[in-house]
Amino acid sequence: VNVRALTWTGSHLRFIDQTRLPHEESIVETDDYRVVLDAIRRLAIRGAPALGIAGAFGVVLAARSFRSCPLPQFVSLLEKVIDELRSTRPTAVNLPNALESMRHILQGNKNARTDEIIERLTEKAISLLRDDEERCRAIGMHGASLLDDGWSVLTHCNTGALATGGDGTALNVIATAVRQGKHLHVYVGETRPLLQGARLTTWELRKLHIPHTLITDSTGPFLMQQHRIDAVIVGADRIALNGDIANKVGTYALALAAYHHHIPFFVAAPMSTFDTSILRGEEIPIEERSPEDVLTCQTNIGKGAIAPEGTEALAPAFDITPAAFITAVITDRGVVRPPFDASIPQLISSEQASWL
Amino acid sequence: VNVRALTWTGSHLRFIDQTRLPHEESIVETDDYRVVLDAIRRLAIRGAPALGIAGAFGVVLAARSFRSCPLPQFVSLLEKVIDELRSTRPTAVNLPNALESMRHILQGNKNARTDEIIERLTEKAISLLRDDEERCRAIGMHGASLLDDGWSVLTHCNTGALATGGDGTALNVIATAVRQGKHLHVYVGETRPLLQGARLTTWELRKLHIPHTLITDSTGPFLMQQHRIDAVIVGADRIALNGDIANKVGTYALALAAYHHHIPFFVAAPMSTFDTSILRGEEIPIEERSPEDVLTCQTNIGKGAIAPEGTEALAPAFDITPAAFITAVITDRGVVRPPFDASIPQLISSEQASWL
Repeated sequence: VNVRALTWTGSHLRFIDQTRLPHEESIVETDDYRVVLDAIRRLAIRGAPALGIAGAFGVVLAARSFRSCPLPQFVSLLEKVIDELRSTRPTAVNLPNALESMRHILQGNKNARTDEIIERLTEKAISLLRDDEERCRAIGMHGASLLDDGWSVLTHCNTGALATGGDGTALNVIATAVRQGKHLHVYVGETRPLLQGARLTTWELRKLHIPHTLITDSTGPFLMQQHRIDAVIVGADRIALNGDIANKVGTYALALAAYHHHIPFFVAAPMSTFDTSILRGEEIPIEERSPEDVLTCQTNIGKGAIAPEGTEALAPAFDITPAAFITAVITDRGVVRPPFDASIPQLISSEQASWL
Repeated sequence: VNVRALTWTGSHLRFIDQTRLPHEESIVETDDYRVVLDAIRRLAIRGAPALGIAGAFGVVLAARSFRSCPLPQFVSLLEKVIDELRSTRPTAVNLPNALESMRHILQGNKNARTDEIIERLTEKAISLLRDDEERCRAIGMHGASLLDDGWSVLTHCNTGALATGGDGTALNVIATAVRQGKHLHVYVGETRPLLQGARLTTWELRKLHIPHTLITDSTGPFLMQQHRIDAVIVGADRIALNGDIANKVGTYALALAAYHHHIPFFVAAPMSTFDTSILRGEEIPIEERSPEDVLTCQTNIGKGAIAPEGTEALAPAFDITPAAFITAVITDRGVVRPPFDASIPQLISSEQASWL
């Protein structure tokens, strides 16, 4: 059975509390949108595509709890919840995209009964989840052919089932290639400070029976120098129209090194990750997290301090990788290559055309 | 009072157990060379210059404990201790250099009494310590002029008093510039897996009252992209004749990024770090540490696991930075610049000439 970060029971959102992995597989089942809001804030649910889906179900749960309110109050309470959810994580575009599509339903059905609105919001959230599952599958299929048998592939952060509504983005490209019979070895960057690589990606790769080796984040460029890495593949939290991407901090350092060593650098993400309002990477808001993240480390015996008390720290959660360092972007609608400022707008209009 | 990693009491070696920092300042005073051997193995004493001095005093302590042995046995026991100490840490050249100078004394005095040999070994170890103190001071003076007032300087690992017999190498360049009245801000890479940056460099900078900010190792290149870093300065464990250096893993990633962003990348090390038998970086042996180092993290509540049990990990302790990425090497005999394959041999022969 595949790992699922999020499932909808018909009345509750069920999710894995990812802050407890890998030492504990703690499942939360809730009908309280505030639990979802809190889970997003404390990264119990994380990963750009999963954030969009969790946000949508947060709205559904809130709507169900406001069910008996008079319509104007129902709408205004729900708008506030949408704003609250939106403010949690600024970088991944999937979250505002999903929330705005929920708001759109809310605003387009102001004359309907609350029951009907709840029904439509629920349908939308379920369709976002199903849609992401399908997009993950398509990303895996489109990307798998880019990885050759026998390769060692470096990845960063977590881009598997835990990050999405389906089987993942970059990690699912690897898993799909392996299912096709290719032998791959995965080097996993631990991804300080929150160790999504060490805690989550290793946990998924073990379940998938894919051989892997954990390294510290700054070891990757040295392995490239030693010709031990054949490709780098990562996800993205937002992609600008020119192909610049925001992704977990540390991605830029790997992209720069891959470029220098002529190693292909692949980005895998669903179409929902493109932000058509953003022309270049510099415009993407970078979430700054608490210095506590850098000053501590979470282990199986708890979270402890690594530095002297009172030390100042800086914790950008993401960084920007310029398009110039990216070999190809793998999406659910196919693979695009440079020049991205031509290929990405073309890909986006082909998807928009398919909606008509 | 300045921090001292190592002091000689006349009969005992006194050192700070660096594995306990920053949460505990634990001082060890020992006359047992096996305690020193163990301290080097478990990194309670670390840093290329400090390793050389600790190794020399390890030989002194062993010699004192073998004092009453007949001369041939005294010599052969001591040769074995030297070999044992030499095998602990393969990358830093200062350790074998110091140990071979001790062996040289042993072999050159085979007709002396054990007391006399012990006396000469002790004199040599003390002179290595005094010499390193002086070299640190000179490195600070030569390097300080390279750092401009108002700069933000990125450093990696620990290159301060804790790494040397004196006030440090790269960190002492920063401290000397600050003492000269320059305002510097230091970004400290935490230096996974063993967190020498987070644990030791922050601890020293706090004692020196120099403003600093802790970051994860892979954040450095992103700060360079944002024009927030004016220079990078690191130490070295071994320098080849062509200027390639071995230093703590992660150095290469920073050098590559600094080069790309046209940011000066400085290396500070005593002359004892040059290895005239090594022409190029590839020839430098890279210490591979236990996977445990990567699979765990040390915090104030103890050492805990960060990854699922049984995860495979790779832990090279050092990496190689090619000379092409280095702006200047700051030594106790002055600053050398490219082309290093000319300037380094010239510097070395000027030092050798000064011995005559």
